[in-house]
Amino acid sequence: MDAGEWYCCFDPELDALRMRARRAVHAHNSMTPDERGPMASELRALFVTAKDAFIEAPFHCAYGMNISLGSGVYLNSSCVILDTATVSIGDGTMLGPAVQIYCPEHHRDVTLRKSGLEIARPVSIGKDVWIGGGAIILGGVTIGDGAIVGAGAVVTRSVAAGTTVVGNPARPLRQF
Amino acid sequence: MDAGEWYCCFDPELDALRMRARRAVHAHNSMTPDERGPMASELRALFVTAKDAFIEAPFHCAYGMNISLGSGVYLNSSCVILDTATVSIGDGTMLGPAVQIYCPEHHRDVTLRKSGLEIARPVSIGKDVWIGGGAIILGGVTIGDGAIVGAGAVVTRSVAAGTTVVGNPARPLRQF
Amino acid sequence: MDAGEWYCCFDPELDALRMRARRAVHAHNSMTPDERGPMASELRALFVTAKDAFIEAPFHCAYGMNISLGSGVYLNSSCVILDTATVSIGDGTMLGPAVQIYCPEHHRDVTLRKSGLEIARPVSIGKDVWIGGGAIILGGVTIGDGAIVGAGAVVTRSVAAGTTVVGNPARPLRQF
Repeated sequence: MDAGEWYCCFDPELDALRMRARRAVHAHNSMTPDERGPMASELRALFVTAKDAFIEAPFHCAYGMNISLGSGVYLNSSCVILDTATVSIGDGTMLGPAVQIYCPEHHRDVTLRKSGLEIARPVSIGKDVWIGGGAIILGGVTIGDGAIVGAGAVVTRSVAAGTTVVGNPARPLRQF
Repeated sequence: MDAGEWYCCFDPELDALRMRARRAVHAHNSMTPDERGPMASELRALFVTAKDAFIEAPFHCAYGMNISLGSGVYLNSSCVILDTATVSIGDGTMLGPAVQIYCPEHHRDVTLRKSGLEIARPVSIGKDVWIGGGAIILGGVTIGDGAIVGAGAVVTRSVAAGTTVVGNPARPLRQF
Repeated sequence: MDAGEWYCCFDPELDALRMRARRAVHAHNSMTPDERGPMASELRALFVTAKDAFIEAPFHCAYGMNISLGSGVYLNSSCVILDTATVSIGDGTMLGPAVQIYCPEHHRDVTLRKSGLEIARPVSIGKDVWIGGGAIILGGVTIGDGAIVGAGAVVTRSVAAGTTVVGNPARPLRQF
């Protein structure tokens, strides 16, 4: 999985890790806002690091153990991170509501897909990035420092630092 | 409704059926992951059939009573099915997070829409289909076996077996 | 904020107002459907007015205090309203699931954005509008009476009364 090779998502060890993440996600989402604070401790315990990041409820992640959040990171309500590979979000980056980050990709061949074959590609988001609500970031994408992703954009390719991308698929704003 | 004719969504009998579905959905979404297992029994009881399907929380459906899930079906977190008509999902099909299936269509004439007139069109998804996260499938759409729907695609027309569609509105990948 | 000028979103007074909204949102989303009825009283107490509007759970808003809902308004499951400015929704208007309304805009200059600078633009939706599921409405947009917004549309410009818009970015249907 870490090596960027095909693996089987039905693996019982992965099942157990997903169950652990479900429990932490449930704790985060069912607590009152006063109990939860910036983030449920159960969720924080899953992550590589979460500094002083703030995660609004509800939130969902697949494993949690591949997520690193920088200082001052903010995730608005209903964000989803499928972290089958490393997901790092730099200092000061803000995600709007319902932003989706998807590292896993199923096999495109039906027979291999049925067998559970899946590959995981990392997502790296720089510092001071603003990702508009409802945007989708696919595995393998790198977003440079200070970039802006428009609301509802579907980001299939990397975004250079300081660039604004919008649309489905997302393209730099000037091309519109 | 079943006959594909215009009906009034304010009907008290429909209200009662929607309330029943809300209760089952609430049970599914508020349980701990260990209590819930693959699916809350209250939710399973609504469906035509759900075999060994797995539904991550949260999930939402309008009635539930028009949904049939095949063997090995997987719905990731935050999927929504407005099942005013039949929604069938074939064996081995996987839905990413926040996939939306919408059977109902309100009337386009304002006066008739105000009166609650609505029509329902079925959605049929074949076997071993992969529907990427955040995709929207509209009523009347059929998706053939082994097809792939890209993340964030808005599917307004039927998709042939083995085809990959992406974009808003969704189009076969080769046309891009 | 009300004056349409840049303000700092880290302001402690705004923090307290957001915490109040989180508590009301949590109450609405965690109640059983029978306790909640059309809307949790905690949520209703936040709004300018909510008449007999019905809000399915889950729902999320940033402040609530800038939201006015007309008679017969219906919000399906997972709608999000970031109401840093006035959001008014006219009588009889229906929002599908996961509709997102975003008033705030962060500064496009990285240094100013880091300092928390944000601007808020109002959203005004007329009477008897139908907004399809998953649509995103950006700040500054006005949608005229009887208009239709297609599922998954990203609405960046105002929509004239009686018009249908679809796509990302949303455009009047005839141009397709």
